[in-house]
Amino acid sequence: MREVTISMDQEAPFHNNVDYCVGTGRMGLALHKEYWEQLALVQKAIGFSYIRGHGLFCDDMAIYQEYKTEDGQLESEYNFTYLDRVVDSYMELGIRPFLELGFMPEKLASGTQTQFYWKGNVTPPRDYEKWCALVQETLRHLLGRYGEEEVLSWPVEVWNEPNLTGFWEHADMEEYFKLYECTSYAIKEVDPRIQVGGPAICGGCDEKWMKGFLSHCQDKGLPLDFISRHHYTTELPKPNGHYGYVELYTSEYAFSTLRDCRKMIDSYAEYKDLPFYITEFNTSYIPNAPIHDTNENAAYLARMLSEIGDFCTGYSYWTFGDVFEEQGVPFTPFHGGFGLVANGCIPKPAFWTFYFYKQLKGKGVYRDEHMVVTQEKDGTVRGVVWNLTRESGCEHWDCKLHIPVEEKRYCCVRQIVDEQVCNPLKVWHDLGEPASLKNEQAELLRAAANPSILTECLVPSSGQLELEIGLGKNSVMYFEIQEAALRSDRGFEYGKY
Amino acid sequence: MREVTISMDQEAPFHNNVDYCVGTGRMGLALHKEYWEQLALVQKAIGFSYIRGHGLFCDDMAIYQEYKTEDGQLESEYNFTYLDRVVDSYMELGIRPFLELGFMPEKLASGTQTQFYWKGNVTPPRDYEKWCALVQETLRHLLGRYGEEEVLSWPVEVWNEPNLTGFWEHADMEEYFKLYECTSYAIKEVDPRIQVGGPAICGGCDEKWMKGFLSHCQDKGLPLDFISRHHYTTELPKPNGHYGYVELYTSEYAFSTLRDCRKMIDSYAEYKDLPFYITEFNTSYIPNAPIHDTNENAAYLARMLSEIGDFCTGYSYWTFGDVFEEQGVPFTPFHGGFGLVANGCIPKPAFWTFYFYKQLKGKGVYRDEHMVVTQEKDGTVRGVVWNLTRESGCEHWDCKLHIPVEEKRYCCVRQIVDEQVCNPLKVWHDLGEPASLKNEQAELLRAAANPSILTECLVPSSGQLELEIGLGKNSVMYFEIQEAALRSDRGFEYGKY
Amino acid sequence: MREVTISMDQEAPFHNNVDYCVGTGRMGLALHKEYWEQLALVQKAIGFSYIRGHGLFCDDMAIYQEYKTEDGQLESEYNFTYLDRVVDSYMELGIRPFLELGFMPEKLASGTQTQFYWKGNVTPPRDYEKWCALVQETLRHLLGRYGEEEVLSWPVEVWNEPNLTGFWEHADMEEYFKLYECTSYAIKEVDPRIQVGGPAICGGCDEKWMKGFLSHCQDKGLPLDFISRHHYTTELPKPNGHYGYVELYTSEYAFSTLRDCRKMIDSYAEYKDLPFYITEFNTSYIPNAPIHDTNENAAYLARMLSEIGDFCTGYSYWTFGDVFEEQGVPFTPFHGGFGLVANGCIPKPAFWTFYFYKQLKGKGVYRDEHMVVTQEKDGTVRGVVWNLTRESGCEHWDCKLHIPVEEKRYCCVRQIVDEQVCNPLKVWHDLGEPASLKNEQAELLRAAANPSILTECLVPSSGQLELEIGLGKNSVMYFEIQEAALRSDRGFEYGKY
Amino acid sequence: MREVTISMDQEAPFHNNVDYCVGTGRMGLALHKEYWEQLALVQKAIGFSYIRGHGLFCDDMAIYQEYKTEDGQLESEYNFTYLDRVVDSYMELGIRPFLELGFMPEKLASGTQTQFYWKGNVTPPRDYEKWCALVQETLRHLLGRYGEEEVLSWPVEVWNEPNLTGFWEHADMEEYFKLYECTSYAIKEVDPRIQVGGPAICGGCDEKWMKGFLSHCQDKGLPLDFISRHHYTTELPKPNGHYGYVELYTSEYAFSTLRDCRKMIDSYAEYKDLPFYITEFNTSYIPNAPIHDTNENAAYLARMLSEIGDFCTGYSYWTFGDVFEEQGVPFTPFHGGFGLVANGCIPKPAFWTFYFYKQLKGKGVYRDEHMVVTQEKDGTVRGVVWNLTRESGCEHWDCKLHIPVEEKRYCCVRQIVDEQVCNPLKVWHDLGEPASLKNEQAELLRAAANPSILTECLVPSSGQLELEIGLGKNSVMYFEIQEAALRSDRGFEYGKY
Repeated sequence: MREVTISMDQEAPFHNNVDYCVGTGRMGLALHKEYWEQLALVQKAIGFSYIRGHGLFCDDMAIYQEYKTEDGQLESEYNFTYLDRVVDSYMELGIRPFLELGFMPEKLASGTQTQFYWKGNVTPPRDYEKWCALVQETLRHLLGRYGEEEVLSWPVEVWNEPNLTGFWEHADMEEYFKLYECTSYAIKEVDPRIQVGGPAICGGCDEKWMKGFLSHCQDKGLPLDFISRHHYTTELPKPNGHYGYVELYTSEYAFSTLRDCRKMIDSYAEYKDLPFYITEFNTSYIPNAPIHDTNENAAYLARMLSEIGDFCTGYSYWTFGDVFEEQGVPFTPFHGGFGLVANGCIPKPAFWTFYFYKQLKGKGVYRDEHMVVTQEKDGTVRGVVWNLTRESGCEHWDCKLHIPVEEKRYCCVRQIVDEQVCNPLKVWHDLGEPASLKNEQAELLRAAANPSILTECLVPSSGQLELEIGLGKNSVMYFEIQEAALRSDRGFEYGKY
Repeated sequence: MREVTISMDQEAPFHNNVDYCVGTGRMGLALHKEYWEQLALVQKAIGFSYIRGHGLFCDDMAIYQEYKTEDGQLESEYNFTYLDRVVDSYMELGIRPFLELGFMPEKLASGTQTQFYWKGNVTPPRDYEKWCALVQETLRHLLGRYGEEEVLSWPVEVWNEPNLTGFWEHADMEEYFKLYECTSYAIKEVDPRIQVGGPAICGGCDEKWMKGFLSHCQDKGLPLDFISRHHYTTELPKPNGHYGYVELYTSEYAFSTLRDCRKMIDSYAEYKDLPFYITEFNTSYIPNAPIHDTNENAAYLARMLSEIGDFCTGYSYWTFGDVFEEQGVPFTPFHGGFGLVANGCIPKPAFWTFYFYKQLKGKGVYRDEHMVVTQEKDGTVRGVVWNLTRESGCEHWDCKLHIPVEEKRYCCVRQIVDEQVCNPLKVWHDLGEPASLKNEQAELLRAAANPSILTECLVPSSGQLELEIGLGKNSVMYFEIQEAALRSDRGFEYGKY
Repeated sequence: MREVTISMDQEAPFHNNVDYCVGTGRMGLALHKEYWEQLALVQKAIGFSYIRGHGLFCDDMAIYQEYKTEDGQLESEYNFTYLDRVVDSYMELGIRPFLELGFMPEKLASGTQTQFYWKGNVTPPRDYEKWCALVQETLRHLLGRYGEEEVLSWPVEVWNEPNLTGFWEHADMEEYFKLYECTSYAIKEVDPRIQVGGPAICGGCDEKWMKGFLSHCQDKGLPLDFISRHHYTTELPKPNGHYGYVELYTSEYAFSTLRDCRKMIDSYAEYKDLPFYITEFNTSYIPNAPIHDTNENAAYLARMLSEIGDFCTGYSYWTFGDVFEEQGVPFTPFHGGFGLVANGCIPKPAFWTFYFYKQLKGKGVYRDEHMVVTQEKDGTVRGVVWNLTRESGCEHWDCKLHIPVEEKRYCCVRQIVDEQVCNPLKVWHDLGEPASLKNEQAELLRAAANPSILTECLVPSSGQLELEIGLGKNSVMYFEIQEAALRSDRGFEYGKY
Repeated sequence: MREVTISMDQEAPFHNNVDYCVGTGRMGLALHKEYWEQLALVQKAIGFSYIRGHGLFCDDMAIYQEYKTEDGQLESEYNFTYLDRVVDSYMELGIRPFLELGFMPEKLASGTQTQFYWKGNVTPPRDYEKWCALVQETLRHLLGRYGEEEVLSWPVEVWNEPNLTGFWEHADMEEYFKLYECTSYAIKEVDPRIQVGGPAICGGCDEKWMKGFLSHCQDKGLPLDFISRHHYTTELPKPNGHYGYVELYTSEYAFSTLRDCRKMIDSYAEYKDLPFYITEFNTSYIPNAPIHDTNENAAYLARMLSEIGDFCTGYSYWTFGDVFEEQGVPFTPFHGGFGLVANGCIPKPAFWTFYFYKQLKGKGVYRDEHMVVTQEKDGTVRGVVWNLTRESGCEHWDCKLHIPVEEKRYCCVRQIVDEQVCNPLKVWHDLGEPASLKNEQAELLRAAANPSILTECLVPSSGQLELEIGLGKNSVMYFEIQEAALRSDRGFEYGKY
């Protein structure tokens, strides 16, 4: 059995920013009741600070409108009814927008190309002036409604994945630079304190785009308060019916792509300290990849969250929930959606990986490819441990931790998520994979989607606690060790009755 | 391993009346918020029809009042403010009173003897006429407020445990007969359809009291719509500090006392078919017996519930929750209280025994000293299985069930409560037995107090399903087997991703 | 002052069916949280039995889908994810669908003509067989999920307003007959007990369409369980910006159109007793007519509800709430939407007209063009009284009611809605007509949108109560007179302190 | 008509501390669900910071316990189960205790004298050492559970009304000094930062007690962080049955007693700047004075709140709600209880007086015996105006306010509470004064207990707004004037439809 000795004196590298931001399907879906309930569940357990998604300017949000004046002129007008409703509901849940500007309102579009089942128009504006006015009016409205202090804390990202032909007509880089330039100046005109960034590109650290963008901004002295890109870690999916099956990158390879990107940014003296956000990440980038619903996804993410903070200022898991329509409306509650939560408000295993990381407080005292351990000032030790079977090669993985402590009585609480005890996908399969859940099935799934909780009393020997850990296939475990002096009531003797 | 073959053709004896009634501390405590929350939890999960407890006429309910008229006469007046508040809250939770008439309002008492920390006066009325008026006014008020249809369904029991000197001055049987006689006539005067009964005695089937009461009623032709008694199954407790430690009866012995009592009642031709209620039962009869909080209590009750319905019309577990003050206010959340729920809304193992029995529907198809199995018309098979280690002698108990079914795909759902996975008392002990729970401790305890849930897919071989069952120490398990045809969505293949 | 003497011996004509059905925007909007909250408010106060709206088969509900098989065949598949979610939420609120079949899924459409901002395709199916399969699969799914007892109580109406070119390509009557025939047979194949009807036409009692439809059904012996049409009572609106201004019909004229239609139906021996539903009614038929938000609308409806039941089996106010997109997303909370409730969950005056009628129980004892009065068996007298100034000619309208009663003490409760005390549109105007309500403004509007409540103690003189009623402009008042014997507590004297 | 011109340049005297503290019945009642609901209602609308009441150490809180050791010694033990439950519920509602130490646990009492229906023991401790240990253990427990930052903000008051023989045996001043001395030292031993004070005396500014106490503290150099007394403003009540009828002081006389007291305190150089709390005030000091439920009480308090802050640091209305048992359990929902809220969660008129004052923000700009007006920095003008008929001599009182403003459009919102529109006591009387409210009666009463809300659009003439105010008998009105620029949507014209 592996033995690990924790030393409390050293600080281990670990940048926990797990609750910074989370992704979401297009903004119009935020009007849905099921969306709200899933987000409420996520916020109660994890409590993200920001939420980022597409579709702010898509037609279902109905912001951009036009009408003919009596003399036949086409005038713009703005409808903030739904935007207010969405942002109000975010504020109610203690989360704020990380604004992504896009896609193009049909009435403002120069072309007809659309993306997704929900047909987001991805062509440049037919009139850049009207586009800038739209951006400015929207920001001014938000400043008016939510106040400066609030809105100035919302980063603004220009467009989404312009390096893909699906998201930006012809993936035309020069046109994107034009969009970025006029948009960033328009934003600063509203208030120079608003943070603006890009290029929000997908895929590996494309020299052409990332370097091109940074050089362009540097050369022209454009406003640039942060840099953003996305991070998915699988090969191309193989489709079958409604689904796509994928091959994961190794964790090491995944980290190397981020490391390279960071280096490239840092090679620009001017941008060395600039905030860098991974505004989307997940394993697969398709919303119908069954891997998203599995315990393996949870274990893979456990590893990912242990190091991703080394490379960036913040990151945003794509997405919090499964109210999502990019490939159409899902036919079944489990369908390989991106969400931490399945439809019916059922937490998936990955939900708990985020929940567990959220518990980690204090300084890092240990990290390797299987665990992260932190310690708070009051002495509490917490850790997340995982067995990503594809990388560990172990169906069952063991370890013994030695933790130096004072001579007291301690309680260790463990929460375990693995394929046996917290695997709602399996329960759903055993139930026959019903497309429509009956109420009692939904309740059963929710009840079966909780970690198993175990406590034990620990007393140190020779100044150390020994914690034996055994993890099943694709298991993720959280533990917490706190002082727990025994103060029995008069006459009470545990174990006797 | 033991093998059990279920036959669907035979009906096994099993009278499931688990949700008929539940006990409660004195009625005045029903005004408490914590009481309401515990009852709400119980009602949502189990849904009892009736609730029975002491203290309807105790001074904290403030019903009976007196004042002096101008000419110095002492007049009675009645205050139903709290009674309405309590009964309203019961109705809101879908539960109705099984009325126990007692104890004596101080102003109406002939003596000063009291029972319990909360000082219920247990002496006869100083004026039987005023007592009868109190009973009648109370019933008339309830009929007026809640309607005939509702209130005529509430049984009315005269006093509590008059055969104990602590509950009825000198345990004076003749005086009780007098009380019963005048009270039962007074009730029938209000409405002859109201069901009245007694003698609500405690302890074994005391010839003197039970026979005495039945003979007395028979001889005098008194109103008698049901017979009641209590049923506790331990020896005298051994006290230590705030606690008492007990010795359990064997299940067989416990059943024998009920069987004898039933026989005695049946020996009265007139009362042979009369409803017979066990208006209180539990293992120990003290509210500070640590056994109540244990998994052994849950396993013992699992056996109890499998047969108790053979002997009586209905029974009432004493009590649903731990808002209870008979020995004073508990010092700690776990303190051996009677409740299915500990303070802080934490379900105890016994809670789940009741919850599991509540799920049993349809006819009994199998029963032995380890399990009860039922089947519904739609073919669903459900069962409760237990390992009461003290009687099985097994730390781990195994069994294989053979269940004849049609050739389909089935899903079996198991819910397991045992000392490892659903033992909040142990978690609380590991935490150091804190008297005051911090919020996060209370949440942890609630989370750790749920059964573990496991599903599996079963397919019959030779027309039979085989279900392997392995139970740890003092474990109680519920299972449910339903048809679960696999209807995979287009392109979905479970296990592949 | 006008004097009215109520006689309790005669029955006045009055068919109160106010809670039968209510209208709703397209079904896809039922996924919205704001929609749910408005419906919850309406259901709590009024409690409609059915809900009817468009869009069951529109693309945002995503039911009808197609895919290519490996051999290139186009196959249908059905997605009930959103339908279940919507109907589940209806059931939770105690309301059930009155199903309208329409409009056409894009993939099944024969043409491209659409209706509304939300682009419902209004062309016939390109393949009637696939259409019928869609209808049947949908009904079978609903029967499977919600059970026979439930779903057989849901009427099914074929299409919406086929007599208008906007709603049915070319308003092609023969094509509609074809649609009705194949659809009604397809429905009966699923279960002959399902109630099917049409023709759901708009506008006056068009001889061509209504007679045509009835004659056609009669001649061909088609299934026909109910007849339906709509009923709006204004001239063509005059547009200005986002709004349309309208001219109301007189109440008499409005009733005459219904009376004529009823007669025509009754002229068919076969259809004389057939249920006849007004599946939509309101004053204006546009969702941007400021009249909908006014007190005049409430007063006009008060008159309408007093007689509409004379002519039909049931009627459905179009609509319960303002989550509605037919002309786009509204720019402001008050915008002349159809709803009983404005966005922000603010009840409009018309809400209270429905609420008041809902309170009327027992038999009708009086009706004229100003009021309806009913009496229950326990003697309670209730009434709705209105002053529709446009028809009464009175800014202030007075009346004295004489009501024969027994010699007791009574309490009269009045609830009054008029332009002074319950006029949220005015409050919103005074606030400056804000497009985005701040929280405290929304709260103020909700608080200001309640009726004023007045009580008085009445004692009869010469066997009669006198009730003086004075109503302001466009006022609607509800009153309720119940026995209220004074039972003062000992020593309490009202008015003294 | 009276004319009042507001000048914005001058600051008017007005010390608004209306949300500092509120009174409550004994602490044990805080366990009740009805108590919690009434407090939640009060906190949502008004949001007091502190809550002060009796009974911390009374036996129903069960804190002080004793047991015999094996060698026969009597040992103290402390039970904080209920204290935690109460304080947790306070914290949940955003309110914190203003601790009053008292009364005496029976087991620690030197005598048997009790006060109230609920029998609080009012005798000195039989063992001062044990008393001090009780105080210290309680404070240490609270510090441990709720943290230093929190608990150090809770003032601690020693005993209640020791100058009355009913509350302190023989009203023995020397004995109280002894109690104060040992208790204050004991508290400071726990943490010198805890604020301790007294003497919590009732009645006018009794020279003997107040001077005696201050001189004693000064002479002996005792810890003294604040001074407290009570303030009731009626003559002795005249009893009748369950009720007492009272005669109010004039406002002027009431203020003069406070002014005198303040002067006396200020005459002690050492105590001149010491915080002075009115830890109880109301009109009548009995919980069965019908005046508490009237509009006159609301109007009287409106005057009181306008000036009481001139004389003290903070004040505490006795009490927030009617869950209260000092004279027994009330027989009826309206019974002259102290509460701002009647049982059944019905706000009384006085509730709104507090609510209205809570809205007053910014600096005082005008005050006279009829109104207080404040202005915020953003220009918003708010005021409370009242017509206390007994003092104004007017059934109807008129006034015209002139308010200097910029040339803009304004909206004035008024909320009015008077005997016609917000008088639940009258509604209840009209209903026949039912002792038990049916659900629909309780709903009616709650609906009828809201202020009427009126808005109007105001435009200045010659730089001034004119606000006409007309108040009925015992009316209290709140108004708020804010800028409300009209921004009509395209095509919308208010008043046209």
